Amino acid sequence: MNHRYSERICSTQKSFIREILKVTADPEIISFAGGLPNPNLIDDEGIQNAAAALLKEDGKTALQYSTTEGHPPLREWIAERYRTRYGLSVDADQILITNGSQQCLDLVGKVYLDKGDSVVVEDPGYLGAIQSFSMFQPEFLSVSLNEEGPDLEQLADVLNTSSPKFMYGIPNSQNPSGITYSENRRRDLAAILCESDVPFIEDDAYGELQFDGVARRPVSAYMDGEGVLTGSFSKIFSPGMRMGWVCAPAEVMDKVLIAKQASDLHSNYLSQRILSKYLETNDINAHIAVINEEYRKRAEWMVSRMEECFPDDVSFTRPTGGMFVWLTLPEGVSSTRLFDAALKQKVAILPGTPFYADGGGESTARINFSNSDEEQIMTGIKIVADVLEEIRITPQ
Amino acid sequence: MNHRYSERICSTQKSFIREILKVTADPEIISFAGGLPNPNLIDDEGIQNAAAALLKEDGKTALQYSTTEGHPPLREWIAERYRTRYGLSVDADQILITNGSQQCLDLVGKVYLDKGDSVVVEDPGYLGAIQSFSMFQPEFLSVSLNEEGPDLEQLADVLNTSSPKFMYGIPNSQNPSGITYSENRRRDLAAILCESDVPFIEDDAYGELQFDGVARRPVSAYMDGEGVLTGSFSKIFSPGMRMGWVCAPAEVMDKVLIAKQASDLHSNYLSQRILSKYLETNDINAHIAVINEEYRKRAEWMVSRMEECFPDDVSFTRPTGGMFVWLTLPEGVSSTRLFDAALKQKVAILPGTPFYADGGGESTARINFSNSDEEQIMTGIKIVADVLEEIRITPQ
Repeated sequence: MNHRYSERICSTQKSFIREILKVTADPEIISFAGGLPNPNLIDDEGIQNAAAALLKEDGKTALQYSTTEGHPPLREWIAERYRTRYGLSVDADQILITNGSQQCLDLVGKVYLDKGDSVVVEDPGYLGAIQSFSMFQPEFLSVSLNEEGPDLEQLADVLNTSSPKFMYGIPNSQNPSGITYSENRRRDLAAILCESDVPFIEDDAYGELQFDGVARRPVSAYMDGEGVLTGSFSKIFSPGMRMGWVCAPAEVMDKVLIAKQASDLHSNYLSQRILSKYLETNDINAHIAVINEEYRKRAEWMVSRMEECFPDDVSFTRPTGGMFVWLTLPEGVSSTRLFDAALKQKVAILPGTPFYADGGGESTARINFSNSDEEQIMTGIKIVADVLEEIRITPQ
Repeated sequence: MNHRYSERICSTQKSFIREILKVTADPEIISFAGGLPNPNLIDDEGIQNAAAALLKEDGKTALQYSTTEGHPPLREWIAERYRTRYGLSVDADQILITNGSQQCLDLVGKVYLDKGDSVVVEDPGYLGAIQSFSMFQPEFLSVSLNEEGPDLEQLADVLNTSSPKFMYGIPNSQNPSGITYSENRRRDLAAILCESDVPFIEDDAYGELQFDGVARRPVSAYMDGEGVLTGSFSKIFSPGMRMGWVCAPAEVMDKVLIAKQASDLHSNYLSQRILSKYLETNDINAHIAVINEEYRKRAEWMVSRMEECFPDDVSFTRPTGGMFVWLTLPEGVSSTRLFDAALKQKVAILPGTPFYADGGGESTARINFSNSDEEQIMTGIKIVADVLEEIRITPQ
């Protein structure tokens, strides 16, 4: 049979990262390529106890169909955290539980995008978002990131010549660059976007993974309640349970709800109930503090090893949160070549090119530290440094 | 802020059924409106044991990120069931685990539909599918159902004048009509669709809920391996765990995989593992036999009570599977009016109009029997009959 597919699906490739991760799944490989939380920091015992208690107390309800919006006490917990940790005025009606925060991007695409619409993304930007939005065939307008956040002059130019439906960004420990927007940049960005009636889709996957434990005020806080935030329990609870959420003003939430009904009726209710029970019976703040301390140490090991082994013309970020170091190789040195050569020595990094919607970034790479121990970091970074030296003196 | 939404979202309403279900959630109401499995037939104890064993044995892995395709042993279990129960030649690579079978419809929409494409649906058709496909802005071409399945003359006319991307249908105990396609109709339908290069998206949510326990040969079986099937564990295991799947030929599966990555990376892995453990350690066939026997009894109570209480000009189906009786009131009697009047007497039915993509169906209603006990059925149907008599003699 001659299947006639949609335009969108024919012009979208499989996720480059997920394909690379298959290659690097070999346990003999030291992998800095992925973005996995450290399994030792997943509280499987706590989750086991929460699941057992819940299924005993209220199993039949937890296993039945439920509402599209999600479990009310879980939504209230999230709203309360916005109020107390971030000083945002949010109530539970503004929260909808999603199948991981990746699904938020699909819902946002459904709610805002017609084919040919434009959207602003960071350059480099989160690949999963670019792939998700691609399903709705927009034009991507890239705005460079510098140390304090998006380049606002570039953004102003973009807004002068086009009328994007939204801007998407990750202000805290951005994936892949690791950049955290400064407070001033957040305020100025909000002002520019509000003036042009462009909502900010604020992906806060790493908001809780700030090594100093301090909450950064969201860009949405400067937008008079008009921000659309997405959040995730993947990094602080369990990625496999796919628990994320959208937080949006009432008018937008009405549309998000329609998109969610059409997508899958509702998110896994058993997992919502287990999570909710876990939050009731465990101190998640203490757990988050442990994760941050462990990731801080790993980032420190990695940075100090890089300082020791890498030549001066290789630059890299000093993470203050998140799970990645962003590496910039000397001009003309390809990170794809480095990836290939290092993989032969059983170390995997992630080339930066797929994060650039408009091309470029050949000399960049993303290096994950959350899922490696001290020995792997010490060994792996030395191997990357040796391989780098080797490919620099060997013609391509 | 002036949010500029997509065309699709502005032209789609909230799910009428989900809104009605909110009204009928009051525990004092006898509800025939929903489509819930009977909670007494959810094996919460078995699931509790499977969850405990799994989390103890392999918790950290089950709570981590996983592959887009889904848990290999679960995919193999599903493929094996196609081979043994349905005689289809399917292997595990052709199965992808979804967030409930509703998500299959979203993925199918992403894979096949550009705006303005046409799709064939049954009339009446499953509302959740119509809503899901609506996100991709197709034109719906309706083909009536008669006792043996879709009207093939109508279908031939439709295929003569248009070139739909696919036809969507539910051959077993169709939702809402309860019709099961005859074997001849399946074969003839397959032949017509193959001739026109139109794939059949075969939603088999109720394939296991056949009261006689006999497997019906899928339409896909007559399509030389080109069928796209969707399946669900919601009716035989747990709806709240949102475990469904797509089964598709390799070429189509490549595209489905891209759509799934873009939608939410992967389905809830913990639930996949709990389900897989449950299937290993429990006799699901025995469990399905119990469900079928219980539903058969409930359907029988309902039909005999309808025969007793309803006047001769009300007709209704005699279900051989599934969860619904389909009611046709005398011409001119509106089921919406019956819904309103019955609700005042604390009984809820579901008017049929939303199931007709092109309008019509004012005298039809869907009556659920799976989630009521004998007393509720006896009381509730009598009240519906009384209310019906009352509204017939009262001017509107």
